[in-house]
Amino acid sequence: MRIGLDVMGGDYAPDAAVSGAILARQVLPDNITLVLIGDKARIEELLKAKGSTSAGYEIIHSSEVIEMNDHPAKAFSQKTQSSIFIGYQLLLSGKIDGFASAGSTGAMMVGAMYTVKSIPGIIRPSIAASIPKINGQSAVLLDVGLNPDCKPDILYQYGILGSLYSEFVYKIQKPRVGLLNIGSEEEKGNILTKAAFQLMKGSSDFNFVGNIEGTDIFDDNVDVIVCDGFVGNIVLKQAETLYKLSCERKIKDEYFDRFNYENYGGTPVLGINSNVIIGHGVSNDIAIKNMILHTRDVINANLPPKISEFFK
Amino acid sequence: MRIGLDVMGGDYAPDAAVSGAILARQVLPDNITLVLIGDKARIEELLKAKGSTSAGYEIIHSSEVIEMNDHPAKAFSQKTQSSIFIGYQLLLSGKIDGFASAGSTGAMMVGAMYTVKSIPGIIRPSIAASIPKINGQSAVLLDVGLNPDCKPDILYQYGILGSLYSEFVYKIQKPRVGLLNIGSEEEKGNILTKAAFQLMKGSSDFNFVGNIEGTDIFDDNVDVIVCDGFVGNIVLKQAETLYKLSCERKIKDEYFDRFNYENYGGTPVLGINSNVIIGHGVSNDIAIKNMILHTRDVINANLPPKISEFFK
Repeated sequence: MRIGLDVMGGDYAPDAAVSGAILARQVLPDNITLVLIGDKARIEELLKAKGSTSAGYEIIHSSEVIEMNDHPAKAFSQKTQSSIFIGYQLLLSGKIDGFASAGSTGAMMVGAMYTVKSIPGIIRPSIAASIPKINGQSAVLLDVGLNPDCKPDILYQYGILGSLYSEFVYKIQKPRVGLLNIGSEEEKGNILTKAAFQLMKGSSDFNFVGNIEGTDIFDDNVDVIVCDGFVGNIVLKQAETLYKLSCERKIKDEYFDRFNYENYGGTPVLGINSNVIIGHGVSNDIAIKNMILHTRDVINANLPPKISEFFK
Repeated sequence: MRIGLDVMGGDYAPDAAVSGAILARQVLPDNITLVLIGDKARIEELLKAKGSTSAGYEIIHSSEVIEMNDHPAKAFSQKTQSSIFIGYQLLLSGKIDGFASAGSTGAMMVGAMYTVKSIPGIIRPSIAASIPKINGQSAVLLDVGLNPDCKPDILYQYGILGSLYSEFVYKIQKPRVGLLNIGSEEEKGNILTKAAFQLMKGSSDFNFVGNIEGTDIFDDNVDVIVCDGFVGNIVLKQAETLYKLSCERKIKDEYFDRFNYENYGGTPVLGINSNVIIGHGVSNDIAIKNMILHTRDVINANLPPKISEFFK
């Protein structure tokens, strides 16, 4: 397996990315190659400075960087020597099996749509996040920001995408899919969720268990939480405050620690023809390490053909 | 001052309501009368059983109850001997200064619209909730469920309502109003928040400080958080999990305790011509006590004429 990492992506790149790669390298088996995409001289210098050899890495040089404030579509089209552009070329040609970046989410999405493309039948790909449940397991929350304005049929597809992700990445049998709503009853909600409920009810495409509310997010009622990207983004960021608040209150707790973004390991883009993981812009070395390990799990789950099969 | 309490409202009525009234009575001065609306014989029996006299109370008999699963509009029109119907008659005729209930939110809203009515100029009244900030203060979050589908001009009005509430109930000078969104930049958001931002920008009606994100909800960046009722309801219920999770993890912390719904004391309905507070259906005696004390604060703030003045 070959995992591509955008070494130039993220607020603390390339330093944090190289450190994270070294941490991941220490736990990955030899048959996995880490393909580091970025300024070659700088990467070699950093590896050396951190006391690491080049064994187990392959370095692909890129001379440009897409910055966080660049216009995503313009930057992707014009900066053809950037790490993100080159990463997607490698992914498209099969030279890497998955591509992870803590760089510009916009440019990563543009790259995905321009190169590996959406799976036919998918209306809108989605970014999914992991939500730590109080029982120790994880729920999948989607969408968490890609599609702030959704139609009911898009939410329906998120039920399918989330289900497949839960089944093949988290190994949950018949994942329970819940619609995030403002009441448990069928007739509750806004225009979007009321219509989505009617589409999901009795679905044979996934195991729909009905509405869940804000109080249920961390419980073990569901394995997949479906909502539009506006709501999902706010829910995810509010969930992240659990760790922040516990630190401010000087509470040390294993469960609250799970909300530390470092452990998330990035969010996969679901519904495209390849394995792409997008990390937090503020990723440090531990976050990058976990993003690489998560990319391995996503590659192993081999979702794109399974999703394609579903939408044939 | 005369505070009306629906003794028949809530899952543990009338027992919890009478106990809560007794707890409130112990801390309220003599010039405040608690008007208990409900089954008179039952109330007298409960007061006696709990070792309390009738001093400081006035009991208004009601022979019907609007149940949680009754159709709100039908029930309010037909059950004219119910505690909610009678409570609104008392409010309308000025025999009570404020009305609090942990009963059917739907029937309480129907009652408000049929009797005391919206303030002219208000497109949609709102239910506001208190969000405990990490610095010890409280932010106002609105709407938390009344209007799951909002237009930009409704959000704009929520900026005004929240500001007046923050200023006169929480005594905050020039409250900072934030728009809950999925990015800090002006161009971020869904269709609704992008349009609302343009309306709010440069407003002279309130002190708009821009977008806030899910990570900022408990920080001291703003005093008023504006969002539609769908998002607000989920944010509020997710905030309530802070207390629930801290209990499950056996964490005892003063800040996390503030998320216990018992302390909320109910949510005020803003934008109507009187003082109405709606409590949690599961309210116990402490929650009812705090709802009564909060009703006193809201009556003291005397918001309806101030809101009317604004919308003239």
